[in-house]
Amino acid sequence: MEASEVVQPWEQLEALAATRNRRGLEAFLEKIGPSEAFRALLRLEPDARERVLTTLSPEGAADLIEEIPDEHAADLIEELPASDAASILNEMESDDQADVLASMHPEDAEAILAHMAPEEAADVRRLMPYARDVAGGLMVTEYLAYPENAAVGSVIDDLSRRAEEGLSPETHAYVVSPAGRLVGRLDLRSLVLSRRQAQLAAVVRPAPYVAADMALEDLEDFFERTEQPSVPVVDAHQMLIGVVYQEDVTEALSERAEQDYLKTQGIVGGDEIRTLPLLVRARRRLSWLSVNIVLNIIAASVIALYEDTLSAVIALAVFLPIVSDMSGCSGNQAVAVSIRELSLGIVKPFEVLRVWLQEIKVGVINGVVLGVLLGLAAQLWKGNPWLGLVVGGALAVNTMVAVSLGGVVPLVLKRLRFDPAASSGPILTTVTDMFGFFLVLSFATLLLPRLAV
Amino acid sequence: MEASEVVQPWEQLEALAATRNRRGLEAFLEKIGPSEAFRALLRLEPDARERVLTTLSPEGAADLIEEIPDEHAADLIEELPASDAASILNEMESDDQADVLASMHPEDAEAILAHMAPEEAADVRRLMPYARDVAGGLMVTEYLAYPENAAVGSVIDDLSRRAEEGLSPETHAYVVSPAGRLVGRLDLRSLVLSRRQAQLAAVVRPAPYVAADMALEDLEDFFERTEQPSVPVVDAHQMLIGVVYQEDVTEALSERAEQDYLKTQGIVGGDEIRTLPLLVRARRRLSWLSVNIVLNIIAASVIALYEDTLSAVIALAVFLPIVSDMSGCSGNQAVAVSIRELSLGIVKPFEVLRVWLQEIKVGVINGVVLGVLLGLAAQLWKGNPWLGLVVGGALAVNTMVAVSLGGVVPLVLKRLRFDPAASSGPILTTVTDMFGFFLVLSFATLLLPRLAV
Repeated sequence: MEASEVVQPWEQLEALAATRNRRGLEAFLEKIGPSEAFRALLRLEPDARERVLTTLSPEGAADLIEEIPDEHAADLIEELPASDAASILNEMESDDQADVLASMHPEDAEAILAHMAPEEAADVRRLMPYARDVAGGLMVTEYLAYPENAAVGSVIDDLSRRAEEGLSPETHAYVVSPAGRLVGRLDLRSLVLSRRQAQLAAVVRPAPYVAADMALEDLEDFFERTEQPSVPVVDAHQMLIGVVYQEDVTEALSERAEQDYLKTQGIVGGDEIRTLPLLVRARRRLSWLSVNIVLNIIAASVIALYEDTLSAVIALAVFLPIVSDMSGCSGNQAVAVSIRELSLGIVKPFEVLRVWLQEIKVGVINGVVLGVLLGLAAQLWKGNPWLGLVVGGALAVNTMVAVSLGGVVPLVLKRLRFDPAASSGPILTTVTDMFGFFLVLSFATLLLPRLAV
Repeated sequence: MEASEVVQPWEQLEALAATRNRRGLEAFLEKIGPSEAFRALLRLEPDARERVLTTLSPEGAADLIEEIPDEHAADLIEELPASDAASILNEMESDDQADVLASMHPEDAEAILAHMAPEEAADVRRLMPYARDVAGGLMVTEYLAYPENAAVGSVIDDLSRRAEEGLSPETHAYVVSPAGRLVGRLDLRSLVLSRRQAQLAAVVRPAPYVAADMALEDLEDFFERTEQPSVPVVDAHQMLIGVVYQEDVTEALSERAEQDYLKTQGIVGGDEIRTLPLLVRARRRLSWLSVNIVLNIIAASVIALYEDTLSAVIALAVFLPIVSDMSGCSGNQAVAVSIRELSLGIVKPFEVLRVWLQEIKVGVINGVVLGVLLGLAAQLWKGNPWLGLVVGGALAVNTMVAVSLGGVVPLVLKRLRFDPAASSGPILTTVTDMFGFFLVLSFATLLLPRLAV
């Protein structure tokens, strides 16, 4: 048997699903672990994928789906009949349900919600309106809440019953007013030590809580300061509506960093994975590229204004792309630092002047260094110091512009409520390209008698 | 009083430190929260910063330092006298100690280690050799371990003593052989229910463990599969050497995503923050830019080979930067998707052919669309369909090359053990720039009679 005949995980997955072997499938997925399982699943054709998901128990399928980024989970689930999709979603945590459903076409989401258990569906409908990166979008609705006038004994009985049913040790219990307002956290130790006839009000401990619209960064701060594993969420009327776990906050921060990176490269509208349908991938990338080509044409049209200079000194055509590319690189470094400082909260969108002052200094140093390098290269090539002066000087000036502008553009976009990760790069490079072409060609026009030999 | 006279947080921080008001300083930092504190601290001059850190208790300073990215924490601590630095480090968790010390100049780190408590220093020295993204580099050495022949009663007494001293509820207790080999986890419930004279061996539960060289992705898998908050780490001899917490793994993954983004933009050698010394920032950025300028010159030198064609059809100079920039953008989208798929483990470095096949299809679609757009623009501008054919055709072909190459380059770099995030972009754009210039100018040379009017 040759090495190439080794059975690949996705082939084995497909074979197990084809024979509808639930037991074997679950054992196999357990063996290879979630990330390998995810990888194998993505390799399959849509119908084989559907067979895997419907062969598994709804719990097993939900476990698998929860490993997959939301956008792709939505794609996978949309392929299934609504009733199968609903029974898988029933097994997921409420925040994951909401994220997956929110990523779907609204009609598909509605069809699935109609098949879900009524309580689950009602919970999800409450979560779906919240943005993904505020407390309301990160919270789960799986928690325990007892009214403050409940008897200690009945609560203890309820807890033991749940423990027998496999209650997760992370589940927190809260005490609410009869109307549902958060009163505090249930102190399990005092609960056990109290008389069974006492009311819960006697064993409640005050609990910090957060509002449903608290932003991701503030939640990060909260957890860093309090070192709690979770926090209850209340609405505007102080009603307990969910619980946010620290690990979900950390995960959301990690996803945001990754998405920022993809957006700067023009991967927008969801995180692309190569098993998405070809036309979806091509279209998503084109939506950004087609804006870019227009910006590029606008920038390069500056060159057209200087055709006479160019035809006199054809060597300049070699330096135009160098100056524009290098300035773009220098400017994008400043963009990257600003986007990161914004996302860490080290810099606030209104501090435009301060960032500008910090970047212009770096721009001057790097501009001079790069300008001298390119100027020397030009002089060596053509033996004309004036050519070196033109291209080196243009690169130096344009680097200063690009660096100081690059630091500032993300802050300005943020203030104007645009997404700095997606828009900073194209805007910056368009401006610095135009200005770079203008500098090289206008300097050259001024010195034309000394350049044209 | 005007709005501009409001006292800024860093001014208040500086004022409190200047009067050496420890109580006030701690209350103030507590009030503004860790991220605002970090921001304010970075605004201060080095000597004011040193005053803040030395005015705080070592515990207070350690809490503050732990909020700061390692590189900057190292810079801050290096500024302090070694004895002050050592007393702050003594209060930090062992993994943070090791990360901070590993980011320093070795001599500075040695000087501080010499002032630290001998046990702490020994722990840190054991951690420092591990890479930051394996279990050994992520683990802490703060845990409890009891020999299996210890008496239940003495362990209960030890635990209660520690609880009175404020033992964190997250601290896990393990059972080891007399030689230090991991035997299992201490089951606290059985411990309390056992006779005080019994040996620990009776109340130990088997615990999953990981090897010190387990990689970050495998740890992520482990925690996803087991849903444990932490896992013990053993060395090659099965000796218990530390504990890795899930939250530290999630945090490391988040940092990695952010660093990948910075590296693609040429921010290397640590995460830049604008309060780093100017020359450090300028030099770090230049180290990447100066490689880039050489690559840019190499790429643009292709243009010099075609001076005759260019001087005959000067309009081509307008399209050279458009073709190279657009191909660069298209290629970098493919790079971004590959880097993300590599870091998620969806794609393995050996799957070059598969990724190439998936990208070439997107490249063909997007190449044709973009080529037609640019070709039409060129024809509209100069009224010459042959010019449209040359630039549109060149862009179409070069987009196909750039996209399929962009998908593959990160995988190849990863196999060759280069960092794909830092090197993929420059390598890709150099190749596609060269090829783009070559395509435009060689097509134009072929069709010269029809282009030159």
